[in-house]
Amino acid sequence: MTEIASLGEFGLISHLSGHIQTTNPSTIHGIGDDAAVLEYKEKETLVTARLLLEGIHFDLTYVALKFLGYKAAIAGFSNIYAMNGYPKQLTVSIGVSKRFSVEDLEEFHLGVEYACKKYGVDIAGENITSSLTGFCVGITCIGEADKDKITYRKNAKKTDLICVSGDFGAAYMGLQLLEREKAVYKGETGFTPDFAGKEYLLERQLRPEARKDVVEELAKKQIVPTSMLDVSDGLASELLHICKQSQVGCIIYEERIPIDYQTAMMAGQFNMNLITAALNGGEDYELLFTVPLVLHEEIQEMNGIRIIGHICDAENGAHLAARDGTLIPLIAQGFHATL
Amino acid sequence: MTEIASLGEFGLISHLSGHIQTTNPSTIHGIGDDAAVLEYKEKETLVTARLLLEGIHFDLTYVALKFLGYKAAIAGFSNIYAMNGYPKQLTVSIGVSKRFSVEDLEEFHLGVEYACKKYGVDIAGENITSSLTGFCVGITCIGEADKDKITYRKNAKKTDLICVSGDFGAAYMGLQLLEREKAVYKGETGFTPDFAGKEYLLERQLRPEARKDVVEELAKKQIVPTSMLDVSDGLASELLHICKQSQVGCIIYEERIPIDYQTAMMAGQFNMNLITAALNGGEDYELLFTVPLVLHEEIQEMNGIRIIGHICDAENGAHLAARDGTLIPLIAQGFHATL
Repeated sequence: MTEIASLGEFGLISHLSGHIQTTNPSTIHGIGDDAAVLEYKEKETLVTARLLLEGIHFDLTYVALKFLGYKAAIAGFSNIYAMNGYPKQLTVSIGVSKRFSVEDLEEFHLGVEYACKKYGVDIAGENITSSLTGFCVGITCIGEADKDKITYRKNAKKTDLICVSGDFGAAYMGLQLLEREKAVYKGETGFTPDFAGKEYLLERQLRPEARKDVVEELAKKQIVPTSMLDVSDGLASELLHICKQSQVGCIIYEERIPIDYQTAMMAGQFNMNLITAALNGGEDYELLFTVPLVLHEEIQEMNGIRIIGHICDAENGAHLAARDGTLIPLIAQGFHATL
Repeated sequence: MTEIASLGEFGLISHLSGHIQTTNPSTIHGIGDDAAVLEYKEKETLVTARLLLEGIHFDLTYVALKFLGYKAAIAGFSNIYAMNGYPKQLTVSIGVSKRFSVEDLEEFHLGVEYACKKYGVDIAGENITSSLTGFCVGITCIGEADKDKITYRKNAKKTDLICVSGDFGAAYMGLQLLEREKAVYKGETGFTPDFAGKEYLLERQLRPEARKDVVEELAKKQIVPTSMLDVSDGLASELLHICKQSQVGCIIYEERIPIDYQTAMMAGQFNMNLITAALNGGEDYELLFTVPLVLHEEIQEMNGIRIIGHICDAENGAHLAARDGTLIPLIAQGFHATL
């Protein structure tokens, strides 16, 4: 274990990032100056920033730093895809307390690099500072989009179809599983809990992906959603954002909400309401978008995209139609509604 | 005192930022979506991000949240000016523990807004999360510059003049003063320490400014420095960055380093080495830059700019020439070399 103090901030940055090459033409100058220099002459520039704090957004008892690095980068990318854009640069700020070593930071960095390589994103800025209280991460992701293809939250229209990628609630169930194992084994070290048959839940929690493929397929089909966002705070909460900002209502159907078999099994075991977990679990990093009704068939042809409901007038409110036909008002109780 | 939980993240953001109007043409879409949308067709885009953590970068015992907000924004702007650019957008991420109220966040926000208004910068993104351990801030500042006017750290040449704006060591002395008062009055509340005659030191520590005026004057004189950065980690540390990245050496002269009268007085009272404080204090937010020797007269005409030395061959190293003529090697021991 190498003490971080032995390298100092700038030694550490060059140790971690010295080998990094940038590959995107829009990255003119990356790590090593007061600011990154980027060139976005043809496109609009998208910028999103997030904080990830130990004990709030992650628990290092069961999250390896490599996975944390990967997930932090994915969370940034996902926000850019949600604008119908493509992430191109990432800056990483790390706050680190004395309990971490140079090797820990290498692990974290590997995860960030791996995600960046996979998604074609350059690490264009990095800084490290000490922290009194554990690990904290600031991520800024910069991307590009054509002006006329950017998807805001505000343009959903009455009768639009509500579409989602992937499935919901799995990351939340993965978290419940990890939390339970942590509670069971508290105090013991070196144990290996039995996660057989629950791999998908853990993968969704620990190593999520961002839906670049969906943005690419929408572009191929020349579909520009009327609104889009990524589901990080729970499907219900994100739907309510669309309703509020587009001044519309919505109805979604319980039986159409995509849920994986493992998620359903786990909810059963935990005696939890499955639909609540799917609607409010969060960290799904799936895309939620609306398209005009006329695109019904084209959307149905898209692999892995599900139509779960439609937009209605604002005065009708936002509801879930349960299997028995009752209408339940949607409430934001996102898992990450942390305050 | 209003509990933060009573508003929730999104209620809080709209409470704090609902009134914010963006004014820069490059800000296409600000707060309220997955990412800000910016347009930089004619210019290069500059991006810089920083974390500011309680207990490391600030002590809320004596720093009002309004000042913290102001200073956090200034730190971002200063990095953009250091590239010879102009800041245009700022995104703010806040991590906040239960000991803070809505009113506290309003104070912080006021400080950010005030700085943004003064410097013509739009708040283009905001997010708030809970923190287990006090206040933390993530700042991302985006700006613009002409491609041929961007100043990196790597192009300083032998015989170039080393120039600085303002004076050095005052912010550090302000910090020492505040720390001493805190120690003296520990446990007592409602006291008013006597800071008469030390106002400049406190102002430099608590409410620094970024040197927009210097960047503007350089542009007016059509001077593009061969290298430039802002002095946040101490003059010595920043000079060594230029030397390393430009592969040169430097010599600066003790008697030419600008130091305010109050800084000198305070160093005397504290029995501290004045030149060490000026070289390593940090948080000065002044600009350090190099220009070709032929610009000697033009630089001397610039108000508040001082030539403190010159660039030499790398094999000569980086030195301070003391008043008695001895050469002292420059060492980076920046105040914020926090690890």
